[in-house]
Amino acid sequence: MAEVPELKESLQESLQQVIHLLDKHKLIEDLVHKQELDMPKRSLVESIVHKQNITLLQKKLDLLHPADVAYILEALPLAQRLDVWELVKAERDGEILLEVSDAVRQTLIADMDSDELLAAAEQLDTDELADLAPDLPTDVLHELLDSLDYQNRERLQSALAYPDDAVGALMDFDIVTIREDITLEVALRYLRRIGTLPDHTDKLFVVDRHDILRGVLPLKRLVVNDLDLGVAEIMADDPVVFHPEDLADDASKAFERYDLVTAPVVDHNNKLVGRLTVDTVMDYIREEAESDMLSMAGLREEEDLFSSVWKSVQNRWTWLAVNLVTALVASRVIGLFEGSIEKTVALAALMPIVAGIGGNSGNQTTTMIVRGLALGQIASHNMHSLLKKELGVSLLNGLIWGSVLGVIAYALYQNITLSIVMTAAMTLNLLLAAVMGVMIPLVMTKSGRDPAVGSSVLITAVTDSGGFFIFLGLAAIFLR
Amino acid sequence: MAEVPELKESLQESLQQVIHLLDKHKLIEDLVHKQELDMPKRSLVESIVHKQNITLLQKKLDLLHPADVAYILEALPLAQRLDVWELVKAERDGEILLEVSDAVRQTLIADMDSDELLAAAEQLDTDELADLAPDLPTDVLHELLDSLDYQNRERLQSALAYPDDAVGALMDFDIVTIREDITLEVALRYLRRIGTLPDHTDKLFVVDRHDILRGVLPLKRLVVNDLDLGVAEIMADDPVVFHPEDLADDASKAFERYDLVTAPVVDHNNKLVGRLTVDTVMDYIREEAESDMLSMAGLREEEDLFSSVWKSVQNRWTWLAVNLVTALVASRVIGLFEGSIEKTVALAALMPIVAGIGGNSGNQTTTMIVRGLALGQIASHNMHSLLKKELGVSLLNGLIWGSVLGVIAYALYQNITLSIVMTAAMTLNLLLAAVMGVMIPLVMTKSGRDPAVGSSVLITAVTDSGGFFIFLGLAAIFLR
Repeated sequence: MAEVPELKESLQESLQQVIHLLDKHKLIEDLVHKQELDMPKRSLVESIVHKQNITLLQKKLDLLHPADVAYILEALPLAQRLDVWELVKAERDGEILLEVSDAVRQTLIADMDSDELLAAAEQLDTDELADLAPDLPTDVLHELLDSLDYQNRERLQSALAYPDDAVGALMDFDIVTIREDITLEVALRYLRRIGTLPDHTDKLFVVDRHDILRGVLPLKRLVVNDLDLGVAEIMADDPVVFHPEDLADDASKAFERYDLVTAPVVDHNNKLVGRLTVDTVMDYIREEAESDMLSMAGLREEEDLFSSVWKSVQNRWTWLAVNLVTALVASRVIGLFEGSIEKTVALAALMPIVAGIGGNSGNQTTTMIVRGLALGQIASHNMHSLLKKELGVSLLNGLIWGSVLGVIAYALYQNITLSIVMTAAMTLNLLLAAVMGVMIPLVMTKSGRDPAVGSSVLITAVTDSGGFFIFLGLAAIFLR
Repeated sequence: MAEVPELKESLQESLQQVIHLLDKHKLIEDLVHKQELDMPKRSLVESIVHKQNITLLQKKLDLLHPADVAYILEALPLAQRLDVWELVKAERDGEILLEVSDAVRQTLIADMDSDELLAAAEQLDTDELADLAPDLPTDVLHELLDSLDYQNRERLQSALAYPDDAVGALMDFDIVTIREDITLEVALRYLRRIGTLPDHTDKLFVVDRHDILRGVLPLKRLVVNDLDLGVAEIMADDPVVFHPEDLADDASKAFERYDLVTAPVVDHNNKLVGRLTVDTVMDYIREEAESDMLSMAGLREEEDLFSSVWKSVQNRWTWLAVNLVTALVASRVIGLFEGSIEKTVALAALMPIVAGIGGNSGNQTTTMIVRGLALGQIASHNMHSLLKKELGVSLLNGLIWGSVLGVIAYALYQNITLSIVMTAAMTLNLLLAAVMGVMIPLVMTKSGRDPAVGSSVLITAVTDSGGFFIFLGLAAIFLR
């Protein structure tokens, strides 16, 4: 039996073996180059060594599941990745391209010519093509569209027309339909004639002659009911259905809420146009969770671990630039109080504490709100109680930590006024952090933006500038 | 048909209606109190109004799916939540308790007495009980164990013995088994006798008389093959299996990689002990993603949006305390250079920029590494290339943004040395951020900790203290 720990070990082992073979390959190549043999002899040795290695590596790779080859490709730096890709791409490139992440896929496609890409595409179903299509060069895509029959071309074009976050972009077309006026016996005979059912088929779609959805017949019900019964009698006539233009996010929540494995996708006339499966939904959930994590850290999009320095700089510069501007604003706030700092230089040492803890506390609040918004738990009716709670938490934290800091500040500088200013500034900055921590994601949502993107940078900006202003302002007033 | 947009609207609508009814209730109660009627009359009015409202609300709630009632409970502040809970808990409390988040579940359980809890628990399957058990008071748990039969008590105790992140804690016991030496016809006749199959049944488990797993028979194959064939001929004899002690994280990756709907769980003798289903795995993935997000922001655990101020303070204090210590360290670093700041007060205004941008850049690196580690793409073999890449990105960013800041600093203070110090400090701090951004999550992983927890706080601590030290240190040397 294929046991998971073994699977995993063998996956790590496979990776190690591939790397070992690649290293050996490189080592021998280097040796050959160093010995400076005359050209013909050198290329002879090279070609023998090369062939031996290649055969070993190829054997290894041929045994692996496409998902596992994809894993190895993701874990290899670019040069080695392309060496491996060269070896596998002839046979299973289509499947493997589907399994790798977007960023890695681009590096692989860049290494293929038009013919190779077309050959890869031909191995795939229409819905799989739709996943691949956005990364293909335009001329290849056109040639591909020409090579499809009418129905598949229609499907591909309509799938491409939907945005990435719509059900239409995620659905597939592996649907098995039956009529409602037959008996289970006839249905089973029909299935036996088909021979195999698509992956994840847990239900048959019951349609009329115009493909209008009438209900669904779970296989579970098909196998436990009397063969004389009619499909109409035992089908579920109130299934959860989706429309191609529904948001993938809502669909994934419905899959979780109602524990679905597959669900029909219908157009506005209730005509069956495709189906959504749990594996696609699961991939979508994973990708969304990752992209939320990346965007909270100010990375614009998914980044290949080994993408070039220049590409990474482009991916990351936007938020660094935003951060630069907010840092400059904070710096100018400090600039306003240079006089006070010159008089009491301790202010310079203490001010980052007030700003930093405000930022941390504000981020905690924002994260709670972003999560509540994502789960749909926050609306106008409970904003008031939320804000009240967060203000309470901040007041308590401000008084506790502010007092601790007041005592520490006194121990360091023996200035009681400075201590009190410190405590007051901490408390006020935490209250500011609470208000902004609630408001920033709410305002972003209201204005139609994703509250996960950049909330963290914005809240830090406010608590930095605000913290400096409050602390230095109070100091300027009370420490003359 | 149940369409999703409608579903979602009606969910939001239901919430609004519940809140409306609750508000009306409260309004009338307040009015009655204000009019200061004599006691008997007052309680008469109260009880009439109360009953009307309650009836309406109860009707509304009875129509909702348990998952939808759970959603409403999560979105209500504590007092209103308990009002609603009082109304639903008699009938479907077990199911609803399973659907709400851990934090909200605790608030609901706190409101129930032992008899109510036992009644709720009796509605549930053993694997569902295992989810609920950790939140139950000890005496209720003991009473519950006593009330179970031998097999279910064994199952519950073993499920509770596994840690939350093990397959054993996630598996259920809804398994349908058949023997391999029967024909499909006999198998189908057996299923018809059973009558209904458990949710998510996409395959039957084929076992021998000692419950040793021999293979699995997908329903998909059962319905398309000839009835005369034997189970042994068409079953898959090499299915992916899990062990109760496997990590849930590995299992969830296997579910995604191999697109599973259900999978058998076996012990070391290959005896079938339970099954894992995709809905449980999907819940697990969602919870893990959320807990990563929360822990990166320094929230210790899942927090109910409306939990009490005091509970929230407890949940958040750990990282605020860590942050306080790191901020104090940074502050002492500044303290070392108070002399330089007194001479050139501009340093105080510029130093937070160097620290802040270093923190932002370091967080971008850390996030990439944490993600690569979670996907298993990072190991000793590629650390070198990773570090080289991140250093390259930082060098380029440092030179670009450092120069921009150098120019701005010159415009503000007309001091060319200060400008150069600024550019150099930015570049050096970004290089420090790159090294630490790679090393911190790697070291945390090596020492067996979750790299998502607190990486962000640690990297910020290093880039703050480091940034102040580098900038003020260079200034102390070159700006005499």
